[in-house]
Amino acid sequence: MDIAAYVRDKAIRTKEAARVFGKLLSGVKNEALLKMAEALLAEAETLKHSNEKDVKSAEKKGLSAAMIDRLKLTDRRIGEMAQGLREVAALPDPVGEITRMWQRPNGMQVGRMRAPIGVIGIIYESRPNVTADATALCLKAGNAVILRCGSEALHSNSAIANILRSVLKDMDLPQDVVTYIELPNRDAVLEMLKLEEYIDLIIPRGGEGLIRAVVDNSKIPVIKHYKGVCHVYVDEEADLDMALAICFNAKVQRPGVCNAMETMLVHEKVAPAFLLMIGEKFRQAGVELFGCSHTQALLGEAKPIDENDFYKEYLDLRLNVRVVRDMDQAISHIETYGSHHTDSIVTKDYAKAMRFVREVDSASVMVNTSTRFSDGFQYGLGAEIGISTDKIHARGPMGLEELTCTKFIVLGNGQLRT
Amino acid sequence: MDIAAYVRDKAIRTKEAARVFGKLLSGVKNEALLKMAEALLAEAETLKHSNEKDVKSAEKKGLSAAMIDRLKLTDRRIGEMAQGLREVAALPDPVGEITRMWQRPNGMQVGRMRAPIGVIGIIYESRPNVTADATALCLKAGNAVILRCGSEALHSNSAIANILRSVLKDMDLPQDVVTYIELPNRDAVLEMLKLEEYIDLIIPRGGEGLIRAVVDNSKIPVIKHYKGVCHVYVDEEADLDMALAICFNAKVQRPGVCNAMETMLVHEKVAPAFLLMIGEKFRQAGVELFGCSHTQALLGEAKPIDENDFYKEYLDLRLNVRVVRDMDQAISHIETYGSHHTDSIVTKDYAKAMRFVREVDSASVMVNTSTRFSDGFQYGLGAEIGISTDKIHARGPMGLEELTCTKFIVLGNGQLRT
Repeated sequence: MDIAAYVRDKAIRTKEAARVFGKLLSGVKNEALLKMAEALLAEAETLKHSNEKDVKSAEKKGLSAAMIDRLKLTDRRIGEMAQGLREVAALPDPVGEITRMWQRPNGMQVGRMRAPIGVIGIIYESRPNVTADATALCLKAGNAVILRCGSEALHSNSAIANILRSVLKDMDLPQDVVTYIELPNRDAVLEMLKLEEYIDLIIPRGGEGLIRAVVDNSKIPVIKHYKGVCHVYVDEEADLDMALAICFNAKVQRPGVCNAMETMLVHEKVAPAFLLMIGEKFRQAGVELFGCSHTQALLGEAKPIDENDFYKEYLDLRLNVRVVRDMDQAISHIETYGSHHTDSIVTKDYAKAMRFVREVDSASVMVNTSTRFSDGFQYGLGAEIGISTDKIHARGPMGLEELTCTKFIVLGNGQLRT
Repeated sequence: MDIAAYVRDKAIRTKEAARVFGKLLSGVKNEALLKMAEALLAEAETLKHSNEKDVKSAEKKGLSAAMIDRLKLTDRRIGEMAQGLREVAALPDPVGEITRMWQRPNGMQVGRMRAPIGVIGIIYESRPNVTADATALCLKAGNAVILRCGSEALHSNSAIANILRSVLKDMDLPQDVVTYIELPNRDAVLEMLKLEEYIDLIIPRGGEGLIRAVVDNSKIPVIKHYKGVCHVYVDEEADLDMALAICFNAKVQRPGVCNAMETMLVHEKVAPAFLLMIGEKFRQAGVELFGCSHTQALLGEAKPIDENDFYKEYLDLRLNVRVVRDMDQAISHIETYGSHHTDSIVTKDYAKAMRFVREVDSASVMVNTSTRFSDGFQYGLGAEIGISTDKIHARGPMGLEELTCTKFIVLGNGQLRT
């Protein structure tokens, strides 16, 4: 089989479908999303049947229980996918929004209008919900998607994609706006990443290995998120009770996600009192602490830290603690070891808060709140297709707006350039 | 010599300098730009002396007169570079601007603040003015630059970069925010394009060959502009006198630039009258016409067109003319053969104007005005570092805003995630 031709042909058809789809009004797009939600629920048995094949082969391959759990489609999860589609249908359509318009001295009106990007390639691992979630967001913003998932979830995702496509077909809409690359081998991905003529953007979702492989091989722009090494800096002017609640929330509320705190930085003036307070709370919660020598002197249970630990994303009940001289040292630590994802200061000092916000070079910079809020839903974007730690196009949680571009529109009445 | 180590070392130092520079307030950045303008004027003799070496070796190599002319530094051109620096100093600083801020139900304020991108790599051909112009814009937006020019202008650009660096040094600012890759060989560029850890964005400026080579080899995001195949569609409802003036302006006012019209599309109902009118004007201006069979029947002098001609960017007094059935065919032509740069409709019909604006998928879409307005200065951006025909990050003329990113800022008072 000619893999390059197979992938190229799919991409060409997706691009053609995107041209038609990008011009549709919201009403039609929303109707399609709502019907897709119904269809997923109606076909729940088919979906679970396809999913069983994936689960069985995963068990045969000896994949971890956690991975198999992520792979599983239950009635509850199918219900959540349908609900997700409905929620995206209810969001305002970003396409056609004129974000600004101004008049030039010659009377021309110049403005910026949101437009679909075109074709978005989603490359992801084994969570079947991504198929429905990512498709919903891309379609709502007038884009087409080319989906490529890990081989573990091939049957499940192919079944989901087929259901979504059949809804489009029934509505006489171009079904190739949802395109699924079924070939399980890696070459199909490599071919896909060469097609800059037909695919406008790649969003990889998964572990760091997958994402690096995509970036290394793509000629198409990639928006990515390698990892979240998030910090909370407890300033000398912090309300220590607030700092305790925020640090505890940032570490313990859900340690396995990218916006959980991995390193706590504490000003030396408040370190003796604060570490005593929070040490006890962390102990009760089973948090394992790794501390600098100063921390260790104050908090006996902290294990010694190696400098390389400061780069680590634990995604677990483990925490680095470092006592710092001042805010400059805290900012410098964040710049050196952080992943520019989300960093927060706890302080009552106005000038320090403002300087931290301005100077910390991260996708989300916070004052007096938990890093766990770094999330599209929590920010009020209504949805999230991922978090970008890039600086180009999208930075931080990405909602519908980040799935559009803006074009210039110019309304004249006969102006000529002289 | 270890080229990889040389380039890497330069990039690391640029990244370090960028961290310091990104935090500077506008006053300091503006002072540096104004002093750079003065220094270029003061060192005009040195500059012309260095430039002579480039010009002589270009003559020896037998480069075309046009290329040698672009390479030449005269007092006037040095004056223009200085003036460019002053104009950028006078523009508002985009850094720190909060573009939006909203309150969440829990009382958190969430907003977006403009921040520098970091390190921007500029890869360009032989125009020495790019060194000063691109540096000014990047520095104003708080970024550092790594400059790499074609070997033809090596001495000139190195001299300019050294003058800019000496100003930074005198002001005790990190001079590595202006870094110049002096190695003339291609390997240096290839090494540069691998350094995604230290360089955040690449902007290539030059011919299509250069840009394709950069895209093919870069792991760093690239913002680019391949070519400008711009259209004017003269609708059946056009004011034909206005259409004539606009089409003439779009083709003839400056044919050698990317926003000049390359193909004129004319509705069949007005084609007989309109082609007669404009045919005469184009003849007087020496415009060579290539027409579809319908055009040829109406306008004897039009040469037959080959379908491939519709993809061409002539950059010259040549024009394709096609008679179309209706606006749908015009839009479809633009989608198929255009470069998504700038396209304009001439019509008195409100509904058609609005539909053209919404449906044409180009960086600039215009009504009743000349494509020649597609330009950062004409749009009122105050400056232009290039035009993007990409959809990611920047589309159309790119000003200072496109040299920044936005980060999320979150101002809380103790909010926790539950």
